[in-house]
Amino acid sequence: MENREISQAVISRLPRYLRFLGELKDQGIERISSQDLSRLMRVTASQIRQDLNNFGGFGQQGYGYNVDYLYDEIGHILGLDKRHNLIIIGAGNLGQALANYVNFDRRGFHTRGLFDSDPHMQGVVVRNMPVRPMSELEDFIRANAIDIAVLTIPKDAATLVADRLVRSGIKGIWNFAHVDLDVPDNVRVENVPLSDSLMKLSYNLRDLEE
Amino acid sequence: MENREISQAVISRLPRYLRFLGELKDQGIERISSQDLSRLMRVTASQIRQDLNNFGGFGQQGYGYNVDYLYDEIGHILGLDKRHNLIIIGAGNLGQALANYVNFDRRGFHTRGLFDSDPHMQGVVVRNMPVRPMSELEDFIRANAIDIAVLTIPKDAATLVADRLVRSGIKGIWNFAHVDLDVPDNVRVENVPLSDSLMKLSYNLRDLEE
Repeated sequence: MENREISQAVISRLPRYLRFLGELKDQGIERISSQDLSRLMRVTASQIRQDLNNFGGFGQQGYGYNVDYLYDEIGHILGLDKRHNLIIIGAGNLGQALANYVNFDRRGFHTRGLFDSDPHMQGVVVRNMPVRPMSELEDFIRANAIDIAVLTIPKDAATLVADRLVRSGIKGIWNFAHVDLDVPDNVRVENVPLSDSLMKLSYNLRDLEE
Repeated sequence: MENREISQAVISRLPRYLRFLGELKDQGIERISSQDLSRLMRVTASQIRQDLNNFGGFGQQGYGYNVDYLYDEIGHILGLDKRHNLIIIGAGNLGQALANYVNFDRRGFHTRGLFDSDPHMQGVVVRNMPVRPMSELEDFIRANAIDIAVLTIPKDAATLVADRLVRSGIKGIWNFAHVDLDVPDNVRVENVPLSDSLMKLSYNLRDLEE
């Protein structure tokens, strides 16, 4: 696992490998050839070999991939064997939806707190967590070793809150606000501009009509 | 706009151009050089030229891009000047969050109905829309010229519902369920596997720690 020059495009595809391998595991399948994995995932066998070769390759010619091993290795590569403590900022529908995703816990992402600037949201309880006021943000981050913040707030607020998060030592921001955040190099941001993918769908529909 | 071989990677980047150009428009800026756009968007000027050249290129040497024109053209390319009628299947937190996104309307995506299989959800009203039972699905799609369905339901349900949607003539599926849907070629699917991007963030944090 010494290769650190893996492209973000490959990294982006790893969770999908993990999902398919997890399903194979659940079905008790121990080995799979790159051809069979290719048919299942609808990507070329050469793409699969190329992607997995980034990590030294886990397959053996004529033997196929060991499902359990590959699953664990990809999980390790993605850092899913580490524990992350999350807070969600913005306790609206989207924030609540994310707070309720139990699968995140299985992957090592533990939501520890929920924040909202709206006084009417104080006292609301989501999955046994009370919605907290923004004034408690910094103390909570430090007291609970929070390393990831999820932003489900409007873009103007996101810009201001990101500065506070950075100053409090947050390492990762999962950003649902439609704005590019300006953060130092030692903070990682993953943007989830939801409507972008709806626009991509729109493009592909347009293509269909022509 | 005759080029139909535009890669999905370029298409994926267009909504971000649209967002930045929209902000420039709001600020009353009429022209921008590829260098200035590059600084603003933090991508190379050559990437910008390359992306926009896919559509014949809208810039003039020494003049820069006309913001309004480029904004409209990208919107047109993405098919945002067409009207789409949406239904949301799954009226949980995520479904409700999407139903409440007013920005979708501005882009031509109009949510017309909300469905849920849970009898306890019947009678709930989200943004003036009553949650409907799944038994009304097919009739509603036909009566309201629905072309896009948004799936915010668990994966087993998503597979079954996708078949019903295809048979009812749905053209596009915006799929938040963590499963690859098996649909005919004339139906477009855009997957939004939310936890995939959280895993990508996890990878990038791991990278930070080493």
